[in-house]
Amino acid sequence: MDPYMIQLHDHGNLPSVLDVHVNIPGRSSVPGKMKGRKARWSVRPSDMSNKTFNPIRAIVDSMKVKPNPNKTMIALSIGDPTVFGNLPTDPEVTRAIKDALESGKYNGYAPSTGYLSSREEVASYYHCPEAPLEAKDVILTSGCSQAIELCLAVLANPGQNILVPRPGFSLYRTLAESMGIEVKPYNLLPEKFWEIDLKQLESLIDEKTACLVVNNPSNPCGSVFSRSHLQKILAVAARQCVPILADEIYGDMVFSDSKFEPLATLSSNVPILSCGGLAKRWLVPGWRMGWILIHDRRDIFGNEIRDGLVKLSQRILGPCTLVQGALKSILHRTPQEFYHNTLSFLKSNADLCYGALAAIPGLRPIRPSGAMYLMVGIEMEHFPEFENDVEFTEQLVAEQSVHCLPATCFEYPHFFRVVITIPEVMMLEACSRIQEFCEQHYHCAEGSQEECDK
Amino acid sequence: MDPYMIQLHDHGNLPSVLDVHVNIPGRSSVPGKMKGRKARWSVRPSDMSNKTFNPIRAIVDSMKVKPNPNKTMIALSIGDPTVFGNLPTDPEVTRAIKDALESGKYNGYAPSTGYLSSREEVASYYHCPEAPLEAKDVILTSGCSQAIELCLAVLANPGQNILVPRPGFSLYRTLAESMGIEVKPYNLLPEKFWEIDLKQLESLIDEKTACLVVNNPSNPCGSVFSRSHLQKILAVAARQCVPILADEIYGDMVFSDSKFEPLATLSSNVPILSCGGLAKRWLVPGWRMGWILIHDRRDIFGNEIRDGLVKLSQRILGPCTLVQGALKSILHRTPQEFYHNTLSFLKSNADLCYGALAAIPGLRPIRPSGAMYLMVGIEMEHFPEFENDVEFTEQLVAEQSVHCLPATCFEYPHFFRVVITIPEVMMLEACSRIQEFCEQHYHCAEGSQEECDK
Repeated sequence: MDPYMIQLHDHGNLPSVLDVHVNIPGRSSVPGKMKGRKARWSVRPSDMSNKTFNPIRAIVDSMKVKPNPNKTMIALSIGDPTVFGNLPTDPEVTRAIKDALESGKYNGYAPSTGYLSSREEVASYYHCPEAPLEAKDVILTSGCSQAIELCLAVLANPGQNILVPRPGFSLYRTLAESMGIEVKPYNLLPEKFWEIDLKQLESLIDEKTACLVVNNPSNPCGSVFSRSHLQKILAVAARQCVPILADEIYGDMVFSDSKFEPLATLSSNVPILSCGGLAKRWLVPGWRMGWILIHDRRDIFGNEIRDGLVKLSQRILGPCTLVQGALKSILHRTPQEFYHNTLSFLKSNADLCYGALAAIPGLRPIRPSGAMYLMVGIEMEHFPEFENDVEFTEQLVAEQSVHCLPATCFEYPHFFRVVITIPEVMMLEACSRIQEFCEQHYHCAEGSQEECDK
Repeated sequence: MDPYMIQLHDHGNLPSVLDVHVNIPGRSSVPGKMKGRKARWSVRPSDMSNKTFNPIRAIVDSMKVKPNPNKTMIALSIGDPTVFGNLPTDPEVTRAIKDALESGKYNGYAPSTGYLSSREEVASYYHCPEAPLEAKDVILTSGCSQAIELCLAVLANPGQNILVPRPGFSLYRTLAESMGIEVKPYNLLPEKFWEIDLKQLESLIDEKTACLVVNNPSNPCGSVFSRSHLQKILAVAARQCVPILADEIYGDMVFSDSKFEPLATLSSNVPILSCGGLAKRWLVPGWRMGWILIHDRRDIFGNEIRDGLVKLSQRILGPCTLVQGALKSILHRTPQEFYHNTLSFLKSNADLCYGALAAIPGLRPIRPSGAMYLMVGIEMEHFPEFENDVEFTEQLVAEQSVHCLPATCFEYPHFFRVVITIPEVMMLEACSRIQEFCEQHYHCAEGSQEECDK
């Protein structure tokens, strides 16, 4: 009997749904290596999926607490500038997509690294004499996340390690560990406005170090490195011959008293993969338009790393072609006023939040210089009810319906992160609720009666 | 001396570009494990990028031949229905994007698996009593490529194997091998309209087989499996306890004399991950909107595989939110007439192409029933000048400026693939050039004088 004939069920009609599982006659005639077959179903997720761990999701999802029903929820936790509707993208950005859509020219496949013309636009937008760029130096990606993924995937093998900032954006770890790459955190120093502890950084480098991840401006810190600090970072990389992955997705998002220096403009010899995109500055994170800028003036990456990035880009192809087709207009037509207004708003909110939180006993906010965040230290000794930042922020939700991200999400306990993109009135209300919360839970630490008497 | 101080160049000015490489004073005071540091630059691409191999690119890029300058190029090689402008998407699809754009509601991050509302729309669109779907069974991805990537990544570990069709879409191998997963090709039988050689398929299964990839309708074959053949495939999977990755990106793209049966509608026990998207049926491959439909009525995947997919989706997040926001309208408002017109055109072109090529001595086209392709066998014994299909198609470009993809790209030598989405006049012109080419190069094979006398 042909084992590939369909077995009819008892009732004799052709079954509309096949329900073959066991007890098929004629099995002994089935060809092939029967000894190898599985006797029963057992489908297990891969090691890679098991190793893919998103600490923010794990921590936030495990926070089972309910907000106070008498207070409307204020989420200071989401790094998405669009959620409150107060920071729309510029009409020119929207128009650029509409034009691309209506042209009908951007429905087909683009090359996996992006349209040549779109790559040229990004190259010319970020080109400068100190860090020249051509189309061949640009790879368009599905968001800055894919840019980071491709950079890590091309630079590091399983068993190698990468250096990442602590506190830092959790995606570096999530991606690296899913690929079997070890993560070594280097310390940022809150007392130095989150500059890198360079000695500790350098001490972490070994022969298995595949790259140094530098995130400037910083999520979650809102810090912006000075030129001289960036030069010191580059000196470490040059001395140790370690290439840099520069996560510059918040590039140019700095307040008027700071200046953003793209890392590549300060070095002619350290090979740098700079990751960026439209997400933050143009306020459209959902559109998933990211890029890698390859800076390699000494030809250290050479064709091999470039080819590697191209090959990796062919796995799932690049970003949505409509957004690619709109890139030229987005980069050239967005008025300076738009960027200026965004930054003015962020700066004003940062000042307001910093001022309010700095006045609260037990909290130590660090003043940001850019990006969309502010980190706040919790003097845990004054809040003995709470074991850690997770419990602190959890209770803050329960009592005040204010949700801040515990900085344990960024491997930095005893801090929490505040998002400063929310409307000013909500920012004020949130700060006042945080104040109320802290005042209610503040305890004088032993041996510091003096401070409590103030 | 502080090794983290910037070293000034001789000329004494603060260098605008740092150029530190060697000869830094005070090295002996640099902290850390100096013995581990690299003495010089050596940045090599990862094994993963080296293993990421796209055979189509490798073969096509190595075809160095120039088209005949006296004949305009006709590309029958590109599986992109939009390149000739004769198959625009429906105005309702464009309008849906425009509405999503203008609403301003789809600029922010969506959940990594997609907006719940968008997942609901996809679920209800593909739901049927035999294969029920809810939002939780849908994961939106950046194109069907990412859908396939996530499915392979969750189901298979390095060292395991997957079964893929031969001839077949090269991405399965590209993705699997980049992840260290072995690929075992099973044979499709041209004499049976590309049905699977089920005995050979089953003989390949061993204890390391993580999944069976079934592509229906098929790229590159244009074949559509009958219900009874699909049931036999399911019987193998059920018997061997191997889950199925159903690549159904060409689902519903079948000609009037065939019927597309989603694999999951024919089984209640084999767990199936069905991959699809907007690319082909809605003629917008560049928009990168794909999805995974999880069919697991016996709970064999269970929560672990579902969670694994969710975790993997968090690595780079999902597709562009503008397209997600437009999904409801795209799925519900696109008129039936649009699908019908596309299929009528494809069917007519397929008939025309099949008829023309079937009349050419030395060629054996296989009549397609769906998708956008047609495979043509080359009776190599009648074209002794050419070593293989690559040389045959290369010379076809050189002489006739007609570019077909040699089926070596699909691991199926002595065939070539024709794309049937091009305008009818070009199709006719291409066929007539192929005819001229074949007539010029046809040689009677030894011992077959009889045929040549015809």
